[in-house]
Amino acid sequence: MVGLGGAVATTAVAGLDLLRAGGDTAGLPLAGLAVDGRPVEAATGMVEYTDLVVGGWDLDGSDLRKAAEQHGVLDHHQLAQAGPYLSSVTPWPAAGDADFCRNVTGGNVVLAETRRAQVDAVRADLVRFREEERLDGLVLVNLASTERWPDPAAPALQSTEAFEAGLDADDRSITPSMVYAYAAIAEGVGYVNFTPSLAADVPALVELAERHGVPVAGKDGKTGQTMMKTVLAPAFRSRALTVEGWYSTNILGNRDGLALDDPASLQSKLQTKGSVLDSILGYPVEDHVVRIDYYRPRGDQKEAWDAIDLVGFLGQRMQVKVDFLCRDSILAAPLAIELARLTDLAQQRGQGGVQTQLGWFFKAPMTPDGSTPEHALHRQERVLLDWVTTGATGR
Amino acid sequence: MVGLGGAVATTAVAGLDLLRAGGDTAGLPLAGLAVDGRPVEAATGMVEYTDLVVGGWDLDGSDLRKAAEQHGVLDHHQLAQAGPYLSSVTPWPAAGDADFCRNVTGGNVVLAETRRAQVDAVRADLVRFREEERLDGLVLVNLASTERWPDPAAPALQSTEAFEAGLDADDRSITPSMVYAYAAIAEGVGYVNFTPSLAADVPALVELAERHGVPVAGKDGKTGQTMMKTVLAPAFRSRALTVEGWYSTNILGNRDGLALDDPASLQSKLQTKGSVLDSILGYPVEDHVVRIDYYRPRGDQKEAWDAIDLVGFLGQRMQVKVDFLCRDSILAAPLAIELARLTDLAQQRGQGGVQTQLGWFFKAPMTPDGSTPEHALHRQERVLLDWVTTGATGR
Amino acid sequence: MVGLGGAVATTAVAGLDLLRAGGDTAGLPLAGLAVDGRPVEAATGMVEYTDLVVGGWDLDGSDLRKAAEQHGVLDHHQLAQAGPYLSSVTPWPAAGDADFCRNVTGGNVVLAETRRAQVDAVRADLVRFREEERLDGLVLVNLASTERWPDPAAPALQSTEAFEAGLDADDRSITPSMVYAYAAIAEGVGYVNFTPSLAADVPALVELAERHGVPVAGKDGKTGQTMMKTVLAPAFRSRALTVEGWYSTNILGNRDGLALDDPASLQSKLQTKGSVLDSILGYPVEDHVVRIDYYRPRGDQKEAWDAIDLVGFLGQRMQVKVDFLCRDSILAAPLAIELARLTDLAQQRGQGGVQTQLGWFFKAPMTPDGSTPEHALHRQERVLLDWVTTGATGR
Amino acid sequence: MVGLGGAVATTAVAGLDLLRAGGDTAGLPLAGLAVDGRPVEAATGMVEYTDLVVGGWDLDGSDLRKAAEQHGVLDHHQLAQAGPYLSSVTPWPAAGDADFCRNVTGGNVVLAETRRAQVDAVRADLVRFREEERLDGLVLVNLASTERWPDPAAPALQSTEAFEAGLDADDRSITPSMVYAYAAIAEGVGYVNFTPSLAADVPALVELAERHGVPVAGKDGKTGQTMMKTVLAPAFRSRALTVEGWYSTNILGNRDGLALDDPASLQSKLQTKGSVLDSILGYPVEDHVVRIDYYRPRGDQKEAWDAIDLVGFLGQRMQVKVDFLCRDSILAAPLAIELARLTDLAQQRGQGGVQTQLGWFFKAPMTPDGSTPEHALHRQERVLLDWVTTGATGR
Repeated sequence: MVGLGGAVATTAVAGLDLLRAGGDTAGLPLAGLAVDGRPVEAATGMVEYTDLVVGGWDLDGSDLRKAAEQHGVLDHHQLAQAGPYLSSVTPWPAAGDADFCRNVTGGNVVLAETRRAQVDAVRADLVRFREEERLDGLVLVNLASTERWPDPAAPALQSTEAFEAGLDADDRSITPSMVYAYAAIAEGVGYVNFTPSLAADVPALVELAERHGVPVAGKDGKTGQTMMKTVLAPAFRSRALTVEGWYSTNILGNRDGLALDDPASLQSKLQTKGSVLDSILGYPVEDHVVRIDYYRPRGDQKEAWDAIDLVGFLGQRMQVKVDFLCRDSILAAPLAIELARLTDLAQQRGQGGVQTQLGWFFKAPMTPDGSTPEHALHRQERVLLDWVTTGATGR
Repeated sequence: MVGLGGAVATTAVAGLDLLRAGGDTAGLPLAGLAVDGRPVEAATGMVEYTDLVVGGWDLDGSDLRKAAEQHGVLDHHQLAQAGPYLSSVTPWPAAGDADFCRNVTGGNVVLAETRRAQVDAVRADLVRFREEERLDGLVLVNLASTERWPDPAAPALQSTEAFEAGLDADDRSITPSMVYAYAAIAEGVGYVNFTPSLAADVPALVELAERHGVPVAGKDGKTGQTMMKTVLAPAFRSRALTVEGWYSTNILGNRDGLALDDPASLQSKLQTKGSVLDSILGYPVEDHVVRIDYYRPRGDQKEAWDAIDLVGFLGQRMQVKVDFLCRDSILAAPLAIELARLTDLAQQRGQGGVQTQLGWFFKAPMTPDGSTPEHALHRQERVLLDWVTTGATGR
Repeated sequence: MVGLGGAVATTAVAGLDLLRAGGDTAGLPLAGLAVDGRPVEAATGMVEYTDLVVGGWDLDGSDLRKAAEQHGVLDHHQLAQAGPYLSSVTPWPAAGDADFCRNVTGGNVVLAETRRAQVDAVRADLVRFREEERLDGLVLVNLASTERWPDPAAPALQSTEAFEAGLDADDRSITPSMVYAYAAIAEGVGYVNFTPSLAADVPALVELAERHGVPVAGKDGKTGQTMMKTVLAPAFRSRALTVEGWYSTNILGNRDGLALDDPASLQSKLQTKGSVLDSILGYPVEDHVVRIDYYRPRGDQKEAWDAIDLVGFLGQRMQVKVDFLCRDSILAAPLAIELARLTDLAQQRGQGGVQTQLGWFFKAPMTPDGSTPEHALHRQERVLLDWVTTGATGR
Repeated sequence: MVGLGGAVATTAVAGLDLLRAGGDTAGLPLAGLAVDGRPVEAATGMVEYTDLVVGGWDLDGSDLRKAAEQHGVLDHHQLAQAGPYLSSVTPWPAAGDADFCRNVTGGNVVLAETRRAQVDAVRADLVRFREEERLDGLVLVNLASTERWPDPAAPALQSTEAFEAGLDADDRSITPSMVYAYAAIAEGVGYVNFTPSLAADVPALVELAERHGVPVAGKDGKTGQTMMKTVLAPAFRSRALTVEGWYSTNILGNRDGLALDDPASLQSKLQTKGSVLDSILGYPVEDHVVRIDYYRPRGDQKEAWDAIDLVGFLGQRMQVKVDFLCRDSILAAPLAIELARLTDLAQQRGQGGVQTQLGWFFKAPMTPDGSTPEHALHRQERVLLDWVTTGATGR
């Protein structure tokens, strides 16, 4: 995991430790799923939760117990129980570039001056981790803070060859998240981007993934407000209630919120949130406003408030307000865990390239050719379950 | 329509008049639906909106213009435009029984002392209307105020024979809504129950409908809060967010609200709302509370507020609040219209008995054998559209 | 305190212990108040928080640590810190009568068969406590669950003499809360009723308090929704916004909520909540609806939702929604503590009878003659502060 | 009125016409106020609503009927009734400067190239209007869209002499709103600034007002969210509930909202909203966030949503959410009318300079010396009513 000391990753790591100690699987979407009457793991070869081992990078080198105390996600008992294990996990030095994520910095930096040197360091970490832990499979999940987007049309991002040259030339349109994505793919390691950063969603890296037969998935975990949007919007369409406007505001106070306090990072986030509505509804919602504000008092307890204006029969207007008092990491961590299991399963099935069937997890699902993805949660769910059960990709 | 002078029926009648005058089809779920590239009407024989003719009963004998003015649903321009037509429509004398719906009364009562005499009067109205308007098809839609439920296990409701005997004996377990349902079915007229009243949902009338090959559908139109519930609950299940409690309150100030101010009628309503959640989620929600309160200032502008308590990963708690500022009749009228068209289509297709494929419209969908129906809106939508397109019943 | 094992009382006792250990005075309204440049305690003789000693009765005889664990109000650290002291406090056997509060029962009952014997037992407890703790002053605060109201016009409640006779005759119109109130007053102990129970708010006990020069105050602590009402309503009046309707719903899951699940107790509560609005606004709000529902998942975390309909200039309508996610005991406990200090101060000042200046604390402030009290929070605050500073009673 | 064609002014003009036709005084705060048992007008000489005559400027030269149709504030009947009068009122050419309010433009511009020439044109309009209408008194109310603030420390704004020189030199730190304020004061006409623009709130114009004995009042009408803030914050302080954070968002779709879509104008607005909380609470709220977003679907129906984080006893946290579905002009127009009456009364009473007693109307009340004003609504109300009744200024 990139961003191992962040709230989502520490919550995932703690949760896996509690599961190994006999904790229950509440909140894990695939827990208890049966395929042909057998547990999904037995039927498909998907890895058990308790067999997962996590390592990763973070700009902050504190051990995960310290990180977890700071995030305040775990309750007192959970912290006490998982504490000893969390103390034993320390992030590896990370490849960062303050230019791309201004509000999150740290001193646990890999000593690598160029993009190419960073790639080499990340690959070395992957090789070492695989050997030390004697892993059967390996997936890299990006949980780092949101980066500023580079120009997606930058030449270095258009083909594998240009990207390779860019790494050598230390091209600044290659962002830290791309360094990790490239390293993973080149090393034959499945890659998942849970953040709004551009990462693997450029022609160069999609091409590389297809060439190496490595699964890639992304981007931006769909946890709170956007998840609700992809649930409500299909229903409004079903009932012929026209969405005249949709005003969304988010307030959150964790490290993610701080990163988004930088307008450049915020812009990345808004881009992945934007197109969801129009695509589901089949017409452009002219007044779709999305706000994200850093608001310290909440910490990890994000609040998402939506004001929706509908027009119904006889042109008459109605309103819906939704206030979601959620917990960012509690929603995200189980999705990150399932993504690791599913990407590994894709790897076992030999299915490389963009994993369309994982769209259920993302605000801006990647498609192999950049075409419009499916956004409605219930249709994404059907595609996902079909794939798990039968291997059908739903393309 | 039974309850022709009510807010839903007058809104439907006005809306159809405005459509005939060239108004648009906003808010009508099947408007613009294409089957194999052709309009659904051309492809399936479904009747056009503009070919529908409406007549019906009401305890209040005022013409529909007066009724519409009182309901306050239409805006000034709509009232002015549809007014002349509405003035020309006057409800027929209705079969009522104050014992079953205490808060709604009126003087426009059919002169029929016994259940059997009421049945005969309703049948005579149906025959006369069909002839006068030279109708190709006829469907009776129950839009009356909510009745108190009789004991569903009453002997008169268990078989066609017992029911016939009950009519002759003027058995008080046969309610006014059953009088209409029986009359329709006996006359070969499709029957839709848009209210929470028990109506056709008893063995005697289901048996009769099957025997005569007449389609019946119900019960209780799913417009506001319950509709949202059947949208949100599948998503919570999909994301493994356990619903620990769901508190729902409704405030409304129209005639429906007044009817529900009678505890006996309220009980009927709560019964049809109750089981939705558990059935979708797959476990019993112990703390599912539903309140409905009559609150005059709102008139037809119903407000539904939900407070939902969720438990996610690591047993941590989250909350969702939904406030739906809706318009009762604006949501209901287009559904009533579509139900008339679809039930007529079933009649054309020769499909009698309980219409399972119409579950998308109802809070408590009838099933032929009383088994648990599908409640999730998106799955109901798929079943409905399949049936429209191919005639598949989804049973 | 009556109801010593309840959530409010245990929170108050724990809070006082934490204050003695150096905790801060957050949430205590009079903390830090200065009178003529001196701390209020030094200037007026009001007792310090850290000099308060608490004892009391409860139908549940568990020690307060067990009680606090069950209520779940204190956080882990607070429970750990106050735990040893809480373990040392055990409620005395209480005088109860299941007929008046059906949903809260317990075995820690005083062995006294008649009203008179109960009075004697309570008085003996007061005398003993005063001696054992060498108290300079003593105040009895009723924090028990809400009782069903007796008929306030019952003869036994109309004069001191009739009440005395009623005690001897074991008259059932004398409720448990009146037993405590009588015992306190007869013993010269100030009496505060923080609950909606009728208690001292009957002519017999007001007369007794005046005769003995004992301060009495009540009733029903104003903590959540009603507090907000008495803040917002004066502002609506100030801005000439007419309140057309006010719909209030409360959901709570603690022992108080369970007590209110009994319709008879609920009725008491609704009575004290009802008249607030009309009195502040100066006109009757016809559509003022108040709902209280027991909803287990929340525990002590009460939620109060208000939907307010306003009419402004040109008769146009507006709405306000307020959702108060509060903590019942966290709001109530500091008020109970301040009431003890203020009632003791009244006692020191020799001011007996109904304490009008304490109206700021109550939903239904008692007045000496039953006249309409002031309800607006900001005016109540001025009266209170004037009295603390100067002793002016504001009558 | 400046901004005569805006939603607030047209609503005020229509409302006064409806009052003259016998409409009721709902929503007018001083309507029905009695002083010593007599109507306030009789007791103090305050002008009657029906004696007010309105004229004014606007960049849009359309008559007010056209303006009112566009704003959509009046309902059908009100528009029909007030329509003939509204048609007869046409705004005078206005003094504008696109540099200060970029999103609101129009062709009805006074032909005056310099600040000095604009002043002369405005003064000429005032003289003409006073003569034509044979007015006993005259007050200029600024209801124009929000301007960008100039540097308040600009030399031209520091003294009357510097300002005069600035007018002659066409100094660009003198904004359009200052042109009107200066013209009014120089002409002996009371001045009210209902907008967030800086206008008369600079030393030069305060000095001028004092020298000429002309009353000035402002700034920024307190109608919706800030009004609620100044109601709730005093209550939180009263109950010792610490405000840890207060997140406020506003969505509105009228011309005001469009003006605020220009970041420079928005900045002015946020400045007048900012300090309210800290001043009432007595400590700085570090996390006080205020957002204003232009959101077309709402038109004049502003929505203000507040999420408030409180800390109470034992450091425990609570939340309040307030959703105010208000109507901007319906709230503002009656305040503008009362301000005209009260400023005229000050003029009658010979009370020049800053009118502190009118702080009840404003988000950022002017004080003569720039000191911190009173913000709590209930204390402002007392000051206002004292002044009306007795002439006491409350300074």
